[in-house]
Amino acid sequence: MIEDKNQQRTPLSTLGEFALIDHLTKNFEISHTSTVKGIGDDAAILDFGDKSIVVTTDLLVENVHFDLSYMPLKHLGYKAVVVNLSDVYAMNAEATQITVSIAVSNRFPLEAVEELYAGIETAAKIYGIDVVGGDTTSSTTGLLISVTAIGQVQKDEAVRRDTAKVGDLLVVTGDLGAAYMGLQVLEREKEVYKVNPNSQPDLEAYTYIIERQLKPEARKDIVKLLKDLDVKPTSMIDISDGLSSEILHLCKGSKVGCDLYEDKIPLDPTVITVCEEFNIDSTTVALNGGEDYELLFTVSQADFPKIKANPHLSIIGHLVEESAGVHLVTRANTKIELKAQGWKTFD
Amino acid sequence: MIEDKNQQRTPLSTLGEFALIDHLTKNFEISHTSTVKGIGDDAAILDFGDKSIVVTTDLLVENVHFDLSYMPLKHLGYKAVVVNLSDVYAMNAEATQITVSIAVSNRFPLEAVEELYAGIETAAKIYGIDVVGGDTTSSTTGLLISVTAIGQVQKDEAVRRDTAKVGDLLVVTGDLGAAYMGLQVLEREKEVYKVNPNSQPDLEAYTYIIERQLKPEARKDIVKLLKDLDVKPTSMIDISDGLSSEILHLCKGSKVGCDLYEDKIPLDPTVITVCEEFNIDSTTVALNGGEDYELLFTVSQADFPKIKANPHLSIIGHLVEESAGVHLVTRANTKIELKAQGWKTFD
Repeated sequence: MIEDKNQQRTPLSTLGEFALIDHLTKNFEISHTSTVKGIGDDAAILDFGDKSIVVTTDLLVENVHFDLSYMPLKHLGYKAVVVNLSDVYAMNAEATQITVSIAVSNRFPLEAVEELYAGIETAAKIYGIDVVGGDTTSSTTGLLISVTAIGQVQKDEAVRRDTAKVGDLLVVTGDLGAAYMGLQVLEREKEVYKVNPNSQPDLEAYTYIIERQLKPEARKDIVKLLKDLDVKPTSMIDISDGLSSEILHLCKGSKVGCDLYEDKIPLDPTVITVCEEFNIDSTTVALNGGEDYELLFTVSQADFPKIKANPHLSIIGHLVEESAGVHLVTRANTKIELKAQGWKTFD
Repeated sequence: MIEDKNQQRTPLSTLGEFALIDHLTKNFEISHTSTVKGIGDDAAILDFGDKSIVVTTDLLVENVHFDLSYMPLKHLGYKAVVVNLSDVYAMNAEATQITVSIAVSNRFPLEAVEELYAGIETAAKIYGIDVVGGDTTSSTTGLLISVTAIGQVQKDEAVRRDTAKVGDLLVVTGDLGAAYMGLQVLEREKEVYKVNPNSQPDLEAYTYIIERQLKPEARKDIVKLLKDLDVKPTSMIDISDGLSSEILHLCKGSKVGCDLYEDKIPLDPTVITVCEEFNIDSTTVALNGGEDYELLFTVSQADFPKIKANPHLSIIGHLVEESAGVHLVTRANTKIELKAQGWKTFD
């Protein structure tokens, strides 16, 4: 039989997810003039004629990205679409089409797959996108969903993550950390359920954070808001892996440093309460929790008057020289170097 | 906990793969004018400005679509790209970009994933496409690859499967059945290997058919050839699931019938020999084997002089009224109704 004679064996866990992608794709060359931006942003940018197309893809794997013991299939379908749309909006583009592929084992009945697609359909309707293709196949074990989203944007209006400038203001939408704390509550309830399947949990106090975990929304409204405010961000990225990780991506790509102010990080009151309940530091949760699907962007200081006091936007820091590094300025006014602690799925 | 209260349970295997997709997506609406063709062809057709974009996606799952005991990872990477490009060429388009997502369990070392990507890179180079994005994540069990391919074509030059006309000639490229017989040989050798791991099989006589299985090529050349011949097919589809299944797709989409002539089906001599060795009917293999990645298309009779005697093209039948049905005309001149027996992955 044909065998792999390669005896080297380096565990995947020695590299993080991002380092792995960098490593595997470092030799890939771009040959088409229509490829404006390939690997390395929220989405690729392709130019075909008078408009730019953005393309992004995400894979959701059972028991890695979701747990069906508390994730209803309809929500899962919805979320699978939303996480991809978030990447399109992070390019300042309008999401227009998606393809959806699923691999599903025979343990799922048709009705379960119908639920999943009902969620996909709902998201498509709410966000105004067309489902234009996909693939459906069996899997030997769990459920896997692969979504590719396509968007369009006027030429030269796509916003990348590698174009921020020293002096720019760092802005984030919405609030952070809620999805992660929602997950903590759901995990706790799962453990309770294992011990006592008849317990009826009262989750009312946690509605907001559970919804942020199970049914997140993508910030389509922000792309419109920025247009209405006549603000073109100098760079943008979506927050899927935690604020810390995304700031580092943005700074690395743009070759800048950053001062992030702890007291400016937007937190919902529920997050603060639940963090106290779980005895977790809320800043740590906002920095490293992930799955918030908010947008992080930079604007030039000249745009400050246009964005200040907008309830959707929080100015959380500013960009400095690359040599100055990336730091969190704490409430006690000490500077701590920011390190990525995002989702390392290969651990 | 949140539970699915739906007590209906219909096994997925009661529907075939195509019926399942049809069922799940039947309510999906198209709202964007840029969506020219959504679900239901080899690829979606999107119009952004002066060119049409085609988009297609495929999912390859370990132990469903490939078996790593005889599929080298480099070949797998290559094949994962090729099967998607085949769908782009089947639209008469030029393939330009792909995204590649993989889910991989920790049992794979980095070197294995590098092999896979080396195959992807080789295919990208040979077919002249850019890898512009993707996602890499862990899986709890096997390996899964999801590729999305993008191509471009002049507006109104995309060729669909639902536009064939009665009287058109049915044409197929290359030869059929080799990939399936290659798989039979590999499966047989796997069984031999289980019994005696030291056996050294002599596979030289099977080189062609094994290569068709492990390292198929997509017919990029045919898109160019048709342009050079100044022939625009009236419809086109790629043969991934077997000739029979694809003819039925084309006829159903175009609302026509078909007479397919058994003695015109192109078979490589190796396929005939190996079919005899395995005691399988070679016509059955060509009709239902699948994974040939040849193109099946129709041309108007006026184009007959342009394509006759071309070594890459075989005229295998002609289209008739829908009411006349879809038939195989055997060597004995009897008519047998064609039925799809393609890859039913949910069995």
